[in-house]
Amino acid sequence: MRSAQRVVIFVQSPASCQTYCGRRQLHTRLQRPSVTGTSSVALRRQKRFITQQWIANTKQAKAEWDQWAVEIKEGKRKSFVQLLDERGLLHQVVGLRELLDKILTERRVGFYAGVDPTAPSLHVGHMIPFMVLVWAFHWGYPITFLLGGSTAKFGDPTGRLEERKQEHRSVRTANIASMHMQLKKLSASMEKYGERHGYEHQWAARRALTNNNVWWNKVPFIDVLRDLGMHMRLGPMLGRDTVKTRLEGKGMSFAEFCYPLMQAWDWFHMFRKGTQVQVGGADQYGNILFGMEAVKQLSKNTAIEIDRRNVDEDVEKPIGITTPLLTTASGEKFGKSAGNAIWLDKDLTSTFELYAYFVRTPDDQVERYLKLFTFLPLEEITKIVEKHTEDPSKRVAQHTLAREFLELVHGRQEAETTALQHQQLFRPRSSTAEPTPPPTRASNMPESFAKKPEAGFTNVGAGNIYAPQVNYTNMQNQTVKLPRSLVLGQTLNKVLYSAGLVSSNNEGHRLIANNGASIGSRPGDSGPMSDALAFTPIRPWVAQKTEEFLIEGKLIIFKIGKWKLRVVELVDDAEFEAQGLKAPGWEEFKLNKGKSADEDGSAPRPGKKSSAIRYIKNTPKNEEKSTPREERSPLRYVNSDDPKRSA
Amino acid sequence: MRSAQRVVIFVQSPASCQTYCGRRQLHTRLQRPSVTGTSSVALRRQKRFITQQWIANTKQAKAEWDQWAVEIKEGKRKSFVQLLDERGLLHQVVGLRELLDKILTERRVGFYAGVDPTAPSLHVGHMIPFMVLVWAFHWGYPITFLLGGSTAKFGDPTGRLEERKQEHRSVRTANIASMHMQLKKLSASMEKYGERHGYEHQWAARRALTNNNVWWNKVPFIDVLRDLGMHMRLGPMLGRDTVKTRLEGKGMSFAEFCYPLMQAWDWFHMFRKGTQVQVGGADQYGNILFGMEAVKQLSKNTAIEIDRRNVDEDVEKPIGITTPLLTTASGEKFGKSAGNAIWLDKDLTSTFELYAYFVRTPDDQVERYLKLFTFLPLEEITKIVEKHTEDPSKRVAQHTLAREFLELVHGRQEAETTALQHQQLFRPRSSTAEPTPPPTRASNMPESFAKKPEAGFTNVGAGNIYAPQVNYTNMQNQTVKLPRSLVLGQTLNKVLYSAGLVSSNNEGHRLIANNGASIGSRPGDSGPMSDALAFTPIRPWVAQKTEEFLIEGKLIIFKIGKWKLRVVELVDDAEFEAQGLKAPGWEEFKLNKGKSADEDGSAPRPGKKSSAIRYIKNTPKNEEKSTPREERSPLRYVNSDDPKRSA
Repeated sequence: MRSAQRVVIFVQSPASCQTYCGRRQLHTRLQRPSVTGTSSVALRRQKRFITQQWIANTKQAKAEWDQWAVEIKEGKRKSFVQLLDERGLLHQVVGLRELLDKILTERRVGFYAGVDPTAPSLHVGHMIPFMVLVWAFHWGYPITFLLGGSTAKFGDPTGRLEERKQEHRSVRTANIASMHMQLKKLSASMEKYGERHGYEHQWAARRALTNNNVWWNKVPFIDVLRDLGMHMRLGPMLGRDTVKTRLEGKGMSFAEFCYPLMQAWDWFHMFRKGTQVQVGGADQYGNILFGMEAVKQLSKNTAIEIDRRNVDEDVEKPIGITTPLLTTASGEKFGKSAGNAIWLDKDLTSTFELYAYFVRTPDDQVERYLKLFTFLPLEEITKIVEKHTEDPSKRVAQHTLAREFLELVHGRQEAETTALQHQQLFRPRSSTAEPTPPPTRASNMPESFAKKPEAGFTNVGAGNIYAPQVNYTNMQNQTVKLPRSLVLGQTLNKVLYSAGLVSSNNEGHRLIANNGASIGSRPGDSGPMSDALAFTPIRPWVAQKTEEFLIEGKLIIFKIGKWKLRVVELVDDAEFEAQGLKAPGWEEFKLNKGKSADEDGSAPRPGKKSSAIRYIKNTPKNEEKSTPREERSPLRYVNSDDPKRSA
Repeated sequence: MRSAQRVVIFVQSPASCQTYCGRRQLHTRLQRPSVTGTSSVALRRQKRFITQQWIANTKQAKAEWDQWAVEIKEGKRKSFVQLLDERGLLHQVVGLRELLDKILTERRVGFYAGVDPTAPSLHVGHMIPFMVLVWAFHWGYPITFLLGGSTAKFGDPTGRLEERKQEHRSVRTANIASMHMQLKKLSASMEKYGERHGYEHQWAARRALTNNNVWWNKVPFIDVLRDLGMHMRLGPMLGRDTVKTRLEGKGMSFAEFCYPLMQAWDWFHMFRKGTQVQVGGADQYGNILFGMEAVKQLSKNTAIEIDRRNVDEDVEKPIGITTPLLTTASGEKFGKSAGNAIWLDKDLTSTFELYAYFVRTPDDQVERYLKLFTFLPLEEITKIVEKHTEDPSKRVAQHTLAREFLELVHGRQEAETTALQHQQLFRPRSSTAEPTPPPTRASNMPESFAKKPEAGFTNVGAGNIYAPQVNYTNMQNQTVKLPRSLVLGQTLNKVLYSAGLVSSNNEGHRLIANNGASIGSRPGDSGPMSDALAFTPIRPWVAQKTEEFLIEGKLIIFKIGKWKLRVVELVDDAEFEAQGLKAPGWEEFKLNKGKSADEDGSAPRPGKKSSAIRYIKNTPKNEEKSTPREERSPLRYVNSDDPKRSA
């Protein structure tokens, strides 16, 4: 019944429109006159359907918020700024504290925090500003995690004495892919974490994840100069500490100098839709301050009239929050231990190590960390610390901190398992390229199904409806290394098997036939994926096509469903062996290679598997014509490498 | 027979391709794999047909050039640098003089000079760098006039103590349109001028006119940072005099600071296609030097591999030339007299005044100017100056200078007429909005045709094949002012008449029916024209559609054929009257307005002509349907305003 009743809203004023549709659409519509000079204005209006339920919810949320604002002002209710203070999350307000309090009380404004994918994973230090977002979400604000896919190209010069070393594009792409999945996981996990602590999901709260390359890939240079560059003075930009320090030292590139402009542009991009608050680490104070000025200028001066905002009113202004930068007793930055960061990626820092890191928290810090990194109420923290003080050797507070943090990041199951492990033994981690563990038969699988070949499959998409569900709590490692020969010149069903995403070549084949797997590619299979994460469904293509999806000669990205993403990094066969890595199908491949060389009486072509060559021999001479046939009947495609057949 | 014989060239290597096709095309082709994995490389190759004649011409041009290089090195032939020296056109070489000599001798490199449309017309001062281009063209080099449609938005800070005042977009658009036509005219005129002085057109010489908004409207911000910004150091950019002066004074905007980057990017855009030499006034030394460095960086570092160039070889390097900045005895910049520039636009500085300006050249400067601004051989200049010295009061040298300059800029006929006028009388110029002078009957018009209505038409496109031809020598003033009421709510055939482009409403109608007139618009009539000059054919639209083509509420641009461009600026009716301006149809309009008010017994709607209202009344209720009918039979469209019908 939710969407049964509808009202039609005629979108007329820019102000009312911005809520319902993207500005570009409306903007284009206003600018483009209809071909017929006589068409009436009414006919050109856009119709948008909104459910009564949506309107009711919006009204209710508004009423609730107003009621809370009254209660806060009367001192009956805690304000969000008070909360941040209590938890030790508020280092500085970029702007006036009273203004921040006013905005956060009167408006359900959006929050955002950005992170540049300059590493394959987030580390523990990133979590401090994110904790503000986590709290904000549960408090009822819309929040956005911004992944700086474009800004990462140039690097924030803040606090750096030298330029960031330019990374190879394939590294950046892999980083973007894995950080994207990580943020997605974190966002889902932290919602669950809050629910367990009694914070019910509020209808008006939203959580979003966006990549700034979505807009930066298109913003013309002259638009940035026109809307922003003409209104920013060079003098103040040069007066910033970062710039002064660098100019006196090793200098900086023009691109680095532009970094704060890009960060400001990002903010404005979201500001137009209500994201008034930026959250960052203490070192981001300068960038956020610059951004606030820039957002105000952009709001007044942008050439796109519909994007202009009135920022004269107090509650309409952009404002920033910085969180404390933590250091250990030895002066190291929080989350960096002996030169190694503590990563949130299980592959880089196992949950066991992560747990251990928090268990090592010094006694004088643990209370502070419990406030910063958990949702435990303050009274409970006090109790825990009291209990801890009774016998510090038991590290009760540290274990609580570690368990809570793991639950926040990796989910409850992982947290409990790790806590248990920690009391028992050290269990070695699986190698990066290990196959998916053989699926245990689902308890609810009927006897009749268990006999079918699908029963062994690990993906629902391949036909096994009893396959184990994957979500953020049990999603696997995202990056695997595979030897080149096991990828190039191989059909994608085999590559899926080697990458550990399916249980056999056969399952890979079924999955592809059912449109169940995707590969990183430009839209519609028109070339390798660019910076933006984009996927296209895998079809039963010939083996030679595989290499067309290589990103920068060394990456292939697969995606199955919502939570299975695999970044395959290609390494030379010899190196793969030397590193002692394993992959499904690798032993058989080596065996086959030896065999076929014997059979043919000639050495196999490098980088090509013998069976692949055999496949080519079977195709008709006219290669162009063979493709449509395959596309008509993907299931009849002969897998000449199937051990049963070749035997 | 020229194109009868063809050869097929398979474009394979990037190097060979760049000559025949744009890089983007090839780049995309290489990146995009075909859908069928099996298609052979040969089938994907691009075929391009080139005539044998073209190949022969290319070879011959190359052989000639090599021969000349040998002769120059042996001292038997003058080099281009020597020529520039002799004529006093070479102020400084940006780079090494020997290198310039080497490049210009060994390579048929491209030259370019840029001008920002910050005024409605070029002035005399612009001609000094352009003279280098004019000579280069006749010497056999390809040349490009670059119109800075995008750079003009931000303004070159060089030599300015304050920021350029931001112009209204409509002003910039009008400036772009009229400067474009002016450069086009100049380019055609200077070719003729050279021919009259015995410089035959060389096959390999090319003259081009381009607007940098062609690329700037699309270049993403991050591409500029990636290819250029990451390789330019901030320190040297800040060390430039212009920046230092401004930072110590009134400061500068970030956009102004980026101006040299944009200029450098422009150069690189053309450099990829062989434009190695940039020419500018003496004040451009800094920008050109910066540009040279940037072009070298871009050639090495651009992410688009196919655009990379090897600039290590001497003859491959970019290089610059600056021309002298002339000042009068009183220290004024050349071409600026008593606060007013001497324009090359006949509307702003009549040819009579322009002639007079050169006649006033001081005796001690006239020889230098003759060398700078004319193609007269040096011996002839010596003779003229000798003759002049005999009786300076006759100003023989000055009159020669004035006549030659006028021929170079406005063509021979105008030069001769003006020279004659100057000896006789001062003839007042026509008002800006004066109608096209009634066409005199062409001498070759047969008696039978003279009786037809078309005989009075001024455009070939309207059906009068005897209509006077328009080219650069007799092209008319480009800007007219019209009262708002004579444009808005009027059908375009009438506006064409009021703008003086056709001899009557009727001719306007015929011209439109024959697709003979265009209007400034986004492609395919999808909105008012943007910064880029783009036109769409006028169709017999209803009167209400006219206002959809308004650019920034005050401009409409028409184009008929190659040389008739008219920028119509709308002014309020009262202001038009107050300025004492006239326009075809204005008197009748005022008369009609009074009449129809009497007839209807009510005052006419402001800004709408009564007859236009009557037209609306006649249309069917369903406005959407009326359009297709009109489009089917444009000639049956009833012009309810035709005096004969309404009478």
